[in-house]
Amino acid sequence: MDSPWDELALAFSRTSMFPFFDIAHYLVSVMAVKRQPGAAALAWKNPISSWFTAMLHCFGGGILSCLLLAEPPLKFLANHTNILLASSIWYITFFCPHDLVSQGYSYLPVQLLASGMKEVTRTWKIVGGVTHANSYYKNGWIVMIAIGWARGGTIITNFERLVKGDWKPEGDEWLKMSYPAKVTLLGSVIFTFQHTQHLAISKHNLMFLYTIFIVATKITMMTTQTSTMTFAPFEDTLSWMLFGWQQPFSSCEKKSEAKSPSNGVGSLASKPVDVASDNVKKKHTKKNE
Amino acid sequence: MDSPWDELALAFSRTSMFPFFDIAHYLVSVMAVKRQPGAAALAWKNPISSWFTAMLHCFGGGILSCLLLAEPPLKFLANHTNILLASSIWYITFFCPHDLVSQGYSYLPVQLLASGMKEVTRTWKIVGGVTHANSYYKNGWIVMIAIGWARGGTIITNFERLVKGDWKPEGDEWLKMSYPAKVTLLGSVIFTFQHTQHLAISKHNLMFLYTIFIVATKITMMTTQTSTMTFAPFEDTLSWMLFGWQQPFSSCEKKSEAKSPSNGVGSLASKPVDVASDNVKKKHTKKNE
Amino acid sequence: MDSPWDELALAFSRTSMFPFFDIAHYLVSVMAVKRQPGAAALAWKNPISSWFTAMLHCFGGGILSCLLLAEPPLKFLANHTNILLASSIWYITFFCPHDLVSQGYSYLPVQLLASGMKEVTRTWKIVGGVTHANSYYKNGWIVMIAIGWARGGTIITNFERLVKGDWKPEGDEWLKMSYPAKVTLLGSVIFTFQHTQHLAISKHNLMFLYTIFIVATKITMMTTQTSTMTFAPFEDTLSWMLFGWQQPFSSCEKKSEAKSPSNGVGSLASKPVDVASDNVKKKHTKKNE
Repeated sequence: MDSPWDELALAFSRTSMFPFFDIAHYLVSVMAVKRQPGAAALAWKNPISSWFTAMLHCFGGGILSCLLLAEPPLKFLANHTNILLASSIWYITFFCPHDLVSQGYSYLPVQLLASGMKEVTRTWKIVGGVTHANSYYKNGWIVMIAIGWARGGTIITNFERLVKGDWKPEGDEWLKMSYPAKVTLLGSVIFTFQHTQHLAISKHNLMFLYTIFIVATKITMMTTQTSTMTFAPFEDTLSWMLFGWQQPFSSCEKKSEAKSPSNGVGSLASKPVDVASDNVKKKHTKKNE
Repeated sequence: MDSPWDELALAFSRTSMFPFFDIAHYLVSVMAVKRQPGAAALAWKNPISSWFTAMLHCFGGGILSCLLLAEPPLKFLANHTNILLASSIWYITFFCPHDLVSQGYSYLPVQLLASGMKEVTRTWKIVGGVTHANSYYKNGWIVMIAIGWARGGTIITNFERLVKGDWKPEGDEWLKMSYPAKVTLLGSVIFTFQHTQHLAISKHNLMFLYTIFIVATKITMMTTQTSTMTFAPFEDTLSWMLFGWQQPFSSCEKKSEAKSPSNGVGSLASKPVDVASDNVKKKHTKKNE
Repeated sequence: MDSPWDELALAFSRTSMFPFFDIAHYLVSVMAVKRQPGAAALAWKNPISSWFTAMLHCFGGGILSCLLLAEPPLKFLANHTNILLASSIWYITFFCPHDLVSQGYSYLPVQLLASGMKEVTRTWKIVGGVTHANSYYKNGWIVMIAIGWARGGTIITNFERLVKGDWKPEGDEWLKMSYPAKVTLLGSVIFTFQHTQHLAISKHNLMFLYTIFIVATKITMMTTQTSTMTFAPFEDTLSWMLFGWQQPFSSCEKKSEAKSPSNGVGSLASKPVDVASDNVKKKHTKKNE
């Protein structure tokens, strides 16, 4: 006899993302596109380019996981229902009289609701990616982590901006994993280990717990207007476990670092064991720059 | 009993592109490569790089459609006959004594003939792409349009120039769909709807009519030295139907546009209903820049 | 009855690359990553990015050949043993106390041994690529050359630096094929023709001879501190055979070259027949810049 908690988690895991959660995801993605400089005017001037950008934001995770698994990246275009839904939301958002959608979206409760529902879809995407990768490579847990991460994240939008010339990758950007990237990677690892029976928890319970976690942190970040939830304590512990018992910068390394021109990153690294707090301080400084 | 017109169209649709139309297509593509600055000297200095560029121009559409359908992009290299033909044309064009090929190509009738025949291959590529995509996604009409457009167009050459550092994508370039891109998209849409039985016209008749259209417009553009045939009346009507009943720039949008720094595109958008002529004027101005 | 030579070559061709030759290959690749400016500090700051870069260097050839044959590029992640080995070498190299690995690698005999063993793996990769391509396209010799070249080379690391913003492709870089690229292409051509029965030599003998050649040239280059072994005599002969009987710059070409702005390449090309020595001189000058 399942507990009420178990039944709730099971019912939750069987919820379909279509249509309401998908609508929220498309809305948040399209609003992100609309907020880019010049996007509204671009939609009038070249609607096809604007529509394509919006589709890339809405379906980017799936496209990337298709590329990584050598499936046709255009596969998402065959799902006419979702394409129609996303296109309608793009059309309404960009071309609504008096820009009603943007005005409605500017209210915080609306943003909280939409973002919360979008975070729910993140869980579904990660789980879908992990399961899909397992069908290709049974017990290939590294592949499963990678595909879950790809499906839940938003890397492909950077590529799209690179192609359009709006983005020049700096060394620093590649280094600083954004909060969504970190939380998606965490989820991907967790669900992979659950799938390979290394975590003694049922999938629906894990989905429920993980979703509550990411929705709660997202809403907290939006209400307190913090740009990122810091994983610093967790990262520092992990760093200490993996690297902390070593001294990274002995004298010969300092010499070689002095020779090779640092790109602005090298000079800030420090001995992890005795100056772990310095690491946290320097990370916070770099994030606040 | 078919009419003579019908028999003509049927015979036309059964024409093989090999070898004469393919030769014309390869010749036009290789001459386009040769006209790039420094290309002739590059061929002497690094023939492999020059040959690779020429192959990319000759087979670019097929490569792109392979990438989009997760087929091996090197598939074109397995067709030894066409590769040999294209390579011979590259070799002769770049290394002919006294540069005879370029001199011969500088005469307008030769260019008209070659370009006209190349336009015929465009039709065959679009139809091939649409049919091929249909074998993957039965009735996936969006995929069919995309693959037909990819096969008939020349997007991959931009990518090749990007990799070589000769091209930095500006926001504007992505916006302005070139005339070949527009006409290929139009053909792709038409043939997709014919394939899905939405247009009551037989395939061979449509191929015949579309080919006459694109060959005639191409030759007209070359003889009158117009850089592009304007679709403006058609585009304006479509814009009016889709967007015209709205007012794009209400006061709140103007405020948000004033805040977000425009990238040079936004400032030129205008209300479509009452200033459609301004749109046409501004498009012409931008094209003439 | 096979000769002792034949038995030696056969035994050599049956040697497994795992684990010692693979370790050498991973070590050389990871040390190449470590020598990039700021890499050591990056490993402390963002280990995932550093690990990913190292994996790209270790498995880049396989990833590229997967992309070209529409196989999942993440396939290498399913081979847990090799991933574990490469990751261990990355970990030990970057995080060893007192940087012992880098110190040990700074001794020339160690570098010679590791680089020599890495060159042996190059042969195995080329042969593997050629055989694999043949399974896709029977007798598709151009595809076989391309896949053999991709597997043995290091093109994908340029792409990785492009994405990170550390590399802006100049026209010149694309022109100058590096020595590893040239020697890999040569090997790929040779093994393809052996596979298609155009060379009357057994595979194990060819593998033995080619490996001796590339190991010997690599060690010679490293001990004499020459940056590249010149193929100039061979290239000049080939140029003369293919292009030498022509005069590349007749008067009309000179006029067209004068019109089109040269990108710095064109002005250095010269008539190959009577100034072949000038070509060699100019190449050496350009390499020494």
